[in-house]
Amino acid sequence: MKIALAQCNYHIGNFASNIEKIASGIEKARNQKVDLVVFSELAISGYPPRDFLEFDDFIQQCQDAVQTLAQQCKGIAAIIGLPTRNPNEKGKPLYNTAVFIENGEIKQHIHKSLLPNYDIFDEYRYFEPNKSFECVNLKGKNLAVTICEDLWNVQDNPLYIINPMDELISQNPEFIINIAASPFNYQQTKIRKDVLHRNAVKYALPLFYVNHVGAQTELLFDGGSLVMDAQGKTMLELAYFEEDFQVFDTDQLSNSKEISDPSREFSEIEMIHDALVMGIRNYFKKLGFSKAILGLSGGIDSAVTSALAAEALGHENVYNVLMPSRFSSDHSVDDSIGLVENLRMPHDIISIEHAFNAFEESLQPYFKGLPFNIAEENLQARTRGVLLMALSNKYGYILLNTSNKSEAAVGYGTLYGDMNGGLSVIGDVYKTQVFHLARYINRNAEIIPENIITKPPSAELRPDQKDTDSLPDYEVLDEILYQYIEQRLGPNEIVKMGFDAALVKRILKLVNTNEYKRYQTPPILRVSTKAFGMGRRMPIVAKYLS
Amino acid sequence: MKIALAQCNYHIGNFASNIEKIASGIEKARNQKVDLVVFSELAISGYPPRDFLEFDDFIQQCQDAVQTLAQQCKGIAAIIGLPTRNPNEKGKPLYNTAVFIENGEIKQHIHKSLLPNYDIFDEYRYFEPNKSFECVNLKGKNLAVTICEDLWNVQDNPLYIINPMDELISQNPEFIINIAASPFNYQQTKIRKDVLHRNAVKYALPLFYVNHVGAQTELLFDGGSLVMDAQGKTMLELAYFEEDFQVFDTDQLSNSKEISDPSREFSEIEMIHDALVMGIRNYFKKLGFSKAILGLSGGIDSAVTSALAAEALGHENVYNVLMPSRFSSDHSVDDSIGLVENLRMPHDIISIEHAFNAFEESLQPYFKGLPFNIAEENLQARTRGVLLMALSNKYGYILLNTSNKSEAAVGYGTLYGDMNGGLSVIGDVYKTQVFHLARYINRNAEIIPENIITKPPSAELRPDQKDTDSLPDYEVLDEILYQYIEQRLGPNEIVKMGFDAALVKRILKLVNTNEYKRYQTPPILRVSTKAFGMGRRMPIVAKYLS
Repeated sequence: MKIALAQCNYHIGNFASNIEKIASGIEKARNQKVDLVVFSELAISGYPPRDFLEFDDFIQQCQDAVQTLAQQCKGIAAIIGLPTRNPNEKGKPLYNTAVFIENGEIKQHIHKSLLPNYDIFDEYRYFEPNKSFECVNLKGKNLAVTICEDLWNVQDNPLYIINPMDELISQNPEFIINIAASPFNYQQTKIRKDVLHRNAVKYALPLFYVNHVGAQTELLFDGGSLVMDAQGKTMLELAYFEEDFQVFDTDQLSNSKEISDPSREFSEIEMIHDALVMGIRNYFKKLGFSKAILGLSGGIDSAVTSALAAEALGHENVYNVLMPSRFSSDHSVDDSIGLVENLRMPHDIISIEHAFNAFEESLQPYFKGLPFNIAEENLQARTRGVLLMALSNKYGYILLNTSNKSEAAVGYGTLYGDMNGGLSVIGDVYKTQVFHLARYINRNAEIIPENIITKPPSAELRPDQKDTDSLPDYEVLDEILYQYIEQRLGPNEIVKMGFDAALVKRILKLVNTNEYKRYQTPPILRVSTKAFGMGRRMPIVAKYLS
Repeated sequence: MKIALAQCNYHIGNFASNIEKIASGIEKARNQKVDLVVFSELAISGYPPRDFLEFDDFIQQCQDAVQTLAQQCKGIAAIIGLPTRNPNEKGKPLYNTAVFIENGEIKQHIHKSLLPNYDIFDEYRYFEPNKSFECVNLKGKNLAVTICEDLWNVQDNPLYIINPMDELISQNPEFIINIAASPFNYQQTKIRKDVLHRNAVKYALPLFYVNHVGAQTELLFDGGSLVMDAQGKTMLELAYFEEDFQVFDTDQLSNSKEISDPSREFSEIEMIHDALVMGIRNYFKKLGFSKAILGLSGGIDSAVTSALAAEALGHENVYNVLMPSRFSSDHSVDDSIGLVENLRMPHDIISIEHAFNAFEESLQPYFKGLPFNIAEENLQARTRGVLLMALSNKYGYILLNTSNKSEAAVGYGTLYGDMNGGLSVIGDVYKTQVFHLARYINRNAEIIPENIITKPPSAELRPDQKDTDSLPDYEVLDEILYQYIEQRLGPNEIVKMGFDAALVKRILKLVNTNEYKRYQTPPILRVSTKAFGMGRRMPIVAKYLS
């Protein structure tokens, strides 16, 4: 039996495009004499469709699309994911469904049982969990078809009481098929392969896994669809971070020992890099934009963002604006020029002094001689923000935000200033990781000037300012933040790890009292297990560790 | 038996304050020889604690608090809501619990069964649903204790399969007690009373209902705790939009016919008004701020926002900044002055011309002679935004956002300009409702100058601009928006209601393509069944009706 794995980059709600991708996958599979072609979870709608699922019109378009696609499956079988209506009176109105189509006809609906409802997932908001289990039969063979999380109760996941494969195995399937939309983070790829491996081994069955690929605003899907044999050995692995289509002949399973494991090994920083580049590229492409604008400060955050954008969009499509002030150091402009020259990117230098002075003059009667403080610091950042947005509006470029996760966490950024942007590229990357990214970008040649990487970080909003004036070293800061944000440890637990109690208290207070700022930041490309944004839902008006 | 209803305004994560409020309620009840004092859902943590629930430290503080409070219940019983740990290996890690305390001892844990997971609710993200049912016994009487949504399956709610009261009724309770955190919207108060009425009637039992009151960032809780007799007649009703504490002697139930129904009747606009005033007041108080700043344009949105703020914070605490430009009409400043004089609010007039000109001059070489367009329009709004934020930073005032729901929906607002603010006051109020609010504010005297209400709305960002240049009349626009946003109708269904097909298509496209703007707006006080913010979760990068 020949099975095709179609790993596509869908566009949420873009039915014309999604139908076209699926139809061309069916056609390609038929041309290669494939028996069954498999598409990923919620392929027809894109994942996650979020509250579009509450519109009956949207659901109807999904139903119409699958009917159209079914008719194209003459002489071939297909498994396609989409939301379907729950026909029962009770329960949530929808199912998260895989339809099994054979020879032009929808033969079976398989509904998802285990509905993730944590972090970035809201599936229980929309979907009723499935409670009945039946294998799909194709040419006399039983296939255990499951949807993403359905395989994630393999090792007594406390969240779930049932385990779909434990039910399906009684029907003696010959393969496991899993269609997924498994969002990337730099720890997830390994964990996911391990879960799939344990399923193959536990049930002693070959496994076909078809994942989403591409970015859906902040959520990144890394692909990496695969085939494992009944011992959990990887037989075939599809591309990461790009579309792919591969056909696997199940005859190969009989001599799997002779096939060498094709698994690609990634370093953590390589994964983050590739994910961010895909995230930028897809954001622009799917919104119909081609050009980015950003402010280049001379610091490492904007330099890394600019280099990633150049890789994603093409160097000629990244417009770098240098906006020095009286507090900018000499090297700020020189270092930035070095970067734009290395990458042959367009740039301009626009001083903020004229507009900043005008603001100071306009405000002078109302500031009543009060000393220079955060107001004037923010005023500089906001003047820059206005200049960038004016150019963005004039030319139709999308402004990229250059804030890193460390400063977003402690609130070291100016709302309506440097926190502006349509997309935050490195807002889920801690400052210490930003340095690793810079080194990775320079792995073959010096793209980011060395001085940008080695000089002490500074916001340059007052004379001789350094980040370390008010923050601990980033190695210490990032570790405390990681324990609090990713690991959700409390202050006592973090102090027990050896950190100073007063410092921990101060940092956690900064995180919690700056929730109001993060509420208004752009969507952040998610590369960690806990990114700011849809997966971290905090009250603003609260008093906890604050 | 004497039962006290303690309707308190809790502060999320502020254990010291919440414990103090509960302890003083217990003390007050004991002084009045009360048998049982009832506090609302998740009283100890505040509602909704959101992802603080994922911190074990936070849960431990809740457990410590309830132990402290239990010891204060000598000679009295209490019911108090808090999150508790699920001791079972399987399921979500927490329960949403009401503890029953009697004479200093925690006697029973009652867990919530029906967990709302729609709109602004995420309870299934944290809590395991309860599946076992037992009445509380107090002095020989069985009490059916339920938590909020537990009573909402009275009329075959399709979302839920079980109905806790159907289970508890077999134990012959004498009363129903429900502790709640039921977020306000202008349709909810009536619906909620109807649901409570139907429970009392269906089970032929008196009902004690204790609700949250106060604002938790965008969520508003209206209070209105009550006692109904076994026929569903309201015997006692607590205050709306403020704290209250009342004792009810169950002996009164025997002659309920002699007690006149104390229910307060509200008009829709009165409810919205009172809710918004509470929302502003609580936002400032709980964050520890006293003064607001806002930009007064001469239009109705900022005028209504300013008047509401004056009522919430005191007229002396609302700093109004008038920022005219070359495009401002003569009446803009005069009308604004009329308002600030009527309410005796501080104000200043700061022209944007100086800073705006400086931006134009700085940008002139880069704008390359391109015509005046959205870039220059936004530049004016952003110059105003920068001035307001500079004053906000200098003086520690919170900036109030003045956008209405109609313009937020279609994206008629400038990011980092007039969309700035710590809190959006009328962002869930359609323009047509803003006019009603203005009339309501003027019900006893002209506070908002008549000309502000009657002149045609304009952004005044280019010569002779009017909102109707590019939008339909607000009566038409708001009705289309309501059908799409609140009712979730699709384009075909809205057109069938009699609206022009091309107009409907254009409006829905504006709504969907402006999701990126709303992603970065401040939290919006929620008064409708579907507000922008946490209860409406939309993809940004999508192509549906867009």
